[in-house]
Amino acid sequence: MTVKAYDSIKPIIWQDDTLQLLDQRLLPAEHTYISLNNVTEVAQAITDMVVRGAPAIGITAAYGIVIAARARFADNADNWQQAIEDDLQILAQSRPTAVNLFWAIDLMREVIKGLAVADPAATLLSIAKQIHEDDIAANVKMGNLGAQLIEGKCAVLTHCNAGALATGGYGTALGVIRSAFEQDKISLVYADETRPWLQGARLTAWEMVQEDIPVSLLVEGAAAHMIKTSQATDTPIRWIIVGSDRIASNGDVANKIGTYALAVLARHHGIKFMVAAPTTTIDMNISCGDDIPIEERSIDEVLSCSGQHVAAIGAQARNPAFDVTPAELVDAIVTEKGVVLNPDFEKIKVMMANVD
Amino acid sequence: MTVKAYDSIKPIIWQDDTLQLLDQRLLPAEHTYISLNNVTEVAQAITDMVVRGAPAIGITAAYGIVIAARARFADNADNWQQAIEDDLQILAQSRPTAVNLFWAIDLMREVIKGLAVADPAATLLSIAKQIHEDDIAANVKMGNLGAQLIEGKCAVLTHCNAGALATGGYGTALGVIRSAFEQDKISLVYADETRPWLQGARLTAWEMVQEDIPVSLLVEGAAAHMIKTSQATDTPIRWIIVGSDRIASNGDVANKIGTYALAVLARHHGIKFMVAAPTTTIDMNISCGDDIPIEERSIDEVLSCSGQHVAAIGAQARNPAFDVTPAELVDAIVTEKGVVLNPDFEKIKVMMANVD
Repeated sequence: MTVKAYDSIKPIIWQDDTLQLLDQRLLPAEHTYISLNNVTEVAQAITDMVVRGAPAIGITAAYGIVIAARARFADNADNWQQAIEDDLQILAQSRPTAVNLFWAIDLMREVIKGLAVADPAATLLSIAKQIHEDDIAANVKMGNLGAQLIEGKCAVLTHCNAGALATGGYGTALGVIRSAFEQDKISLVYADETRPWLQGARLTAWEMVQEDIPVSLLVEGAAAHMIKTSQATDTPIRWIIVGSDRIASNGDVANKIGTYALAVLARHHGIKFMVAAPTTTIDMNISCGDDIPIEERSIDEVLSCSGQHVAAIGAQARNPAFDVTPAELVDAIVTEKGVVLNPDFEKIKVMMANVD
Repeated sequence: MTVKAYDSIKPIIWQDDTLQLLDQRLLPAEHTYISLNNVTEVAQAITDMVVRGAPAIGITAAYGIVIAARARFADNADNWQQAIEDDLQILAQSRPTAVNLFWAIDLMREVIKGLAVADPAATLLSIAKQIHEDDIAANVKMGNLGAQLIEGKCAVLTHCNAGALATGGYGTALGVIRSAFEQDKISLVYADETRPWLQGARLTAWEMVQEDIPVSLLVEGAAAHMIKTSQATDTPIRWIIVGSDRIASNGDVANKIGTYALAVLARHHGIKFMVAAPTTTIDMNISCGDDIPIEERSIDEVLSCSGQHVAAIGAQARNPAFDVTPAELVDAIVTEKGVVLNPDFEKIKVMMANVD
């Protein structure tokens, strides 16, 4: 089997007993790893978006808890299981929207509770590595399931980066795109540049270029024009494919700001809207998208571009990092456990019942 | 009468027999005027967006023709009326979408044809100044007419810059916003930053800040989220107000890329979509928006941000500068000759019959 380019894209590495994160703030210009030495550094790296993407945040938090447990155990072997709760709280406060973060923390907390009072690092590390590996396996499975939904050959449009960089590897939305491209179903990938952080221009385009998947960047404002005008060309956009940071139990989807507009545009133009996300992204504890906390980040991200202040001095801004697409605008949710068409609570409940 | 801040915003100045343009590429950081000495420089300034905005481009072209006539007459007083046609062609090729450019060129060409073979500069200059003054007067009239459509107090959302900087002064969409704000009908102006050129962040925000009109910048992707979530607040977005670069005779509207998506979002959310433009922007020679040439600019504008290359090396891009909003998504076209609700060919024809 040939080694695919995405095998070389590793946002999260555990090596020599340390957690190393590819600094995604510097991509694609620089390819630099940062070593994280304690839980505060891990939480800050998540907040600062050294690592981003819901699945990748969850995996990072799991490794962060290994680091925290090692330190707490060394500090006080009798009390570490109580003391580590502070660290879990620090991690939980790093970003609010991606539920994979809380899923990973909760899973690790349960494991910690069940551990004997002995050096926990090896056990927790094996769990963290399992979360990491499971995520990659889920991505590959989703990729195949999502690709099956695409009939004929067409262009697709994606938003933000839901690729290898946002996950353990391979990607959710980009996993579907990778699989479909290998099956010769995709002629061109349109990628929204995704202001303010430019994940599309910096990360998605970088992943696609590495694998010779044709990619054409758009400013967000151009998506509607391209959807409409592409229909008369030999590369019509027939699918919008995105990832998710949290899916409510009714199928409402939180994802990077700008996603909701694409779903409205897809419905208006009669094209399809697909969300690819592992079941760890589904939050069965909330009934709908209104209950998903939407992170508002610093307005400096909007007032500046490439680190340079561009806006008029004195202008205010809003910077919601995510939006919610209502389930009725979603044609398909693709998870590693199956495809849910026209999602609703009952269908999602049935699928989640199959989750181990 | 107090002098309003917008009175000090002068994108185009004719002074000491030279044309001076406020270099809008440098705003808001620098407030620098460029002197244009010949028609090639004027055309290049339009192409390079030293000056932009359909009405401002038309006015600039008119002054450019004054400069051209002066040179042609000095060169050969017997032949200048024939020779200047080359200059008109150079200007006509500077940008393709804004019809005000061609309107101004055609108007000046007709005047030139009717001139006796004598020094034409004074006559043509008086015509150019009249075009400039008429545009400002039209803006003020549109501002009042558009403001009348807004009932109650609300937030509005605008895109790109259709302000004093895009016109002779005052503005089309921002003219309506200025008038409505003075009438206490606007609580907050949301302004799309408008990638790739950031006219919203750099120009619209600058105009609003100067007049203490509350302005909040958004990345384009955030518009849908703000439209939806603002409805439950005390500053609901009830109108999207934009300018136009060309309106077809059926009411289809070409405007800055990203406008069409806003019109789809307005309809989806049950809010209103207003286009403010002088009748010089209406092209009765074309039947619909499909016939409006859409400029595609250099993809470097998309691949870079603030002059810095940000996209992955090897990524392609598309950079359409405008899109077309179909008439059925337009609730009102506001011109200096009146308001056309739910525009169609018959209604527009009736209004245009009133144009001098």
